[in-house]
Amino acid sequence: MLRKKIYHLLLAASLSVFYVSCHKPKSALVLITDFGMKDGAVAAMKGVALKLAPELQVHDLTHEIPAYNIWEGAYRLQQTAPYWAEGTVFVCVIDPGVGTERKSIVLKTKANHYYVGPDNGLFTLVAESEGVDEVREISGANRLPNSQGSYTFHGRDVFAYSGAKLASGMITFDEVGSKIPNNQLVMLSYPKAKYENNQVVGGIPILDIQYGNVWTNIDNKTFEGLGAKFGDKLNVKIFNKETLVFEGTMPYEHTFGDVKEGENLLYLNSLMNVSLGINMGSFADSYKIASGTDWRIQISK
Amino acid sequence: MLRKKIYHLLLAASLSVFYVSCHKPKSALVLITDFGMKDGAVAAMKGVALKLAPELQVHDLTHEIPAYNIWEGAYRLQQTAPYWAEGTVFVCVIDPGVGTERKSIVLKTKANHYYVGPDNGLFTLVAESEGVDEVREISGANRLPNSQGSYTFHGRDVFAYSGAKLASGMITFDEVGSKIPNNQLVMLSYPKAKYENNQVVGGIPILDIQYGNVWTNIDNKTFEGLGAKFGDKLNVKIFNKETLVFEGTMPYEHTFGDVKEGENLLYLNSLMNVSLGINMGSFADSYKIASGTDWRIQISK
Amino acid sequence: MLRKKIYHLLLAASLSVFYVSCHKPKSALVLITDFGMKDGAVAAMKGVALKLAPELQVHDLTHEIPAYNIWEGAYRLQQTAPYWAEGTVFVCVIDPGVGTERKSIVLKTKANHYYVGPDNGLFTLVAESEGVDEVREISGANRLPNSQGSYTFHGRDVFAYSGAKLASGMITFDEVGSKIPNNQLVMLSYPKAKYENNQVVGGIPILDIQYGNVWTNIDNKTFEGLGAKFGDKLNVKIFNKETLVFEGTMPYEHTFGDVKEGENLLYLNSLMNVSLGINMGSFADSYKIASGTDWRIQISK
Repeated sequence: MLRKKIYHLLLAASLSVFYVSCHKPKSALVLITDFGMKDGAVAAMKGVALKLAPELQVHDLTHEIPAYNIWEGAYRLQQTAPYWAEGTVFVCVIDPGVGTERKSIVLKTKANHYYVGPDNGLFTLVAESEGVDEVREISGANRLPNSQGSYTFHGRDVFAYSGAKLASGMITFDEVGSKIPNNQLVMLSYPKAKYENNQVVGGIPILDIQYGNVWTNIDNKTFEGLGAKFGDKLNVKIFNKETLVFEGTMPYEHTFGDVKEGENLLYLNSLMNVSLGINMGSFADSYKIASGTDWRIQISK
Repeated sequence: MLRKKIYHLLLAASLSVFYVSCHKPKSALVLITDFGMKDGAVAAMKGVALKLAPELQVHDLTHEIPAYNIWEGAYRLQQTAPYWAEGTVFVCVIDPGVGTERKSIVLKTKANHYYVGPDNGLFTLVAESEGVDEVREISGANRLPNSQGSYTFHGRDVFAYSGAKLASGMITFDEVGSKIPNNQLVMLSYPKAKYENNQVVGGIPILDIQYGNVWTNIDNKTFEGLGAKFGDKLNVKIFNKETLVFEGTMPYEHTFGDVKEGENLLYLNSLMNVSLGINMGSFADSYKIASGTDWRIQISK
Repeated sequence: MLRKKIYHLLLAASLSVFYVSCHKPKSALVLITDFGMKDGAVAAMKGVALKLAPELQVHDLTHEIPAYNIWEGAYRLQQTAPYWAEGTVFVCVIDPGVGTERKSIVLKTKANHYYVGPDNGLFTLVAESEGVDEVREISGANRLPNSQGSYTFHGRDVFAYSGAKLASGMITFDEVGSKIPNNQLVMLSYPKAKYENNQVVGGIPILDIQYGNVWTNIDNKTFEGLGAKFGDKLNVKIFNKETLVFEGTMPYEHTFGDVKEGENLLYLNSLMNVSLGINMGSFADSYKIASGTDWRIQISK
């Protein structure tokens, strides 16, 4: 009888093991870099991650961030992170200061996302939108063994390696390294959107490059201050520093098809931010608008 | 004894659960868009799909369809779909009419592939080659919760979301939404290949852009009408509307290496369609040939 | 009692099956081509692989190798393969001679990596760095059924198909086809790095294109011959054939941040090879340096 009980206990234990190994909740590893896909850098990162954890799901956010453009990296993270599950680990490598004194960190946000990368401002926007839970500096123990001689590819040697350890459950967040005070996280400064003096003002953080649309950082709540209704004609001015680059009137519409081909419109984009476009055309190309902290927009009725 | 029987029944039930959860046949989700990979649009779609179904296999067909080019999207689907397993769910977003009255649908073909996307002609060629089994309009229940305010990103809010539900088995095809009569599916018109008056004629639906080869829609069966043998010299004329753009003679060969570097050849491409190329060169660039419904080709012995 | 024993034996057998099917060590399939991602070629390859083996992990090394550039393909393989697990199967398609007499092979290296592709020199560098274990010619049995009419897409019909069979365990390496003598593997010739006459000399196999850095094939061991210390100013000459293209002096540093913006430096890149860069700039663009077998570099103290 005892032997049978032990036998059944062993069976039950085996089943638990199967349950855990087949069903262990795995976090996806999502990569964003400015490496492009022309060389082997991204593939080296994936090899490092999958050698550690062969069953890991590895996905690409984008590798087409313009070289060294920390701001655009910050923007792409904020744009896409809300659509990913809790527990997702983002490995983020826009890192002009690689090999210098800047810290290698993991940021855990209140949305339960993990951001692995350099502490250079890349996490500014997700820190603001999701809230900082805790920041830890990646310890030497979480670096690819025998990679100390290489100073210039932390994406592979530090971030992919430690990110894969975290996503696969090989280490807990506490085991990443020592805690850094939340207020020491490096943050970029940028113009904020607001309603004042009967107009809404804001910046142009990014272009919708594939289609040439201009995306502002004016969210729909701030825009509501203006009291605009669909079909209303709105006055729009765009400045680069102090130079007026565009001035015109266009309707506020649901979508491109609401105006004729070639006509301008103002609409809320898929992030629910005010955007400018041309039906079947490129607003940015037509009026030579770019993005970044030097660009401002004013909208009034 | 009864307790033991129950115990064994429970064990058997557990094993069935393991069997199903480890072995549930999962359909791949394959994405094709005109979004490019420079911004976060594709990553947002993948996040939505994987948040619903973390174990889903998600693959990229291409995201480099030229913006708004429904025809080229239709062509790339037809080119690649035959190589994918039954049950594969294709999420297809070349969608200039997003936010207008065009329907959001899922097409099930007789090849047992599912095509999720706008009803704008994008499925013309797979509908013809695989045969239409059934078409359903995507219901509001299969839209990303709380996305109703966004009118311009159905790729994320409607197509990725409902495609992931279907591929992961969360809904059946019947639960996609109401049936649409098969003959209401929007179809594009285009020139067909045929043999007549001792010549084969057809169109140039696409270029093999990476190598500059010109791909016609003349299949090997139609081409057989000409009775050409390997090594035969053939006369080729290419027109853009009524303008003769190219006229020349070239051999029908197995492959590029059968002619000298820099020489023209006519061959059957990997889709078994008549194609024109230059060994180690670009036929399209050399003779300024493009693709689309305005281009026609005539071939005679 | 006998029935119960049989029952328990069956249970144990079932558990073993679960163990194997949930835990079967699967090898990743890694694709490298010169196809680009604009058309459906890569997607057709993935469809073929996943139709055979739906659970296979398929990853992209890169598809942006310049068309027909066997050397650059060889370089990217060597650059990334060391980071991938043993057993990884690389499907490699830079194949200007497709359809001609060149052999279709699988190379097994002593690092226990498998390289599937044309025998045209593409495996030169991994054969040298990992050592050749065995080479086999892919037999007709390992070709996509009913693809014999197509002569121009071995990437899909031969390499993806046989690679997926191998990675998924459907065939063993012995079942790939007949053995080829190791010394018949096609190898490219290229300039080697060495220390002589108080200088190190070598070639420029590749550029770090995204950032414009110049990567040499002088490894850190060879470089040590010079006895340079961090901060030392080194004399650098770069030749294209016999023409002197660049001559200048620059410090040997850990990383970019060690010099001012716009200044040149010599450093060890992430492969521990001597490289030239400009902090926040492009060395290759600034001095019109390219890569390939015509380029030589000389470095002295």
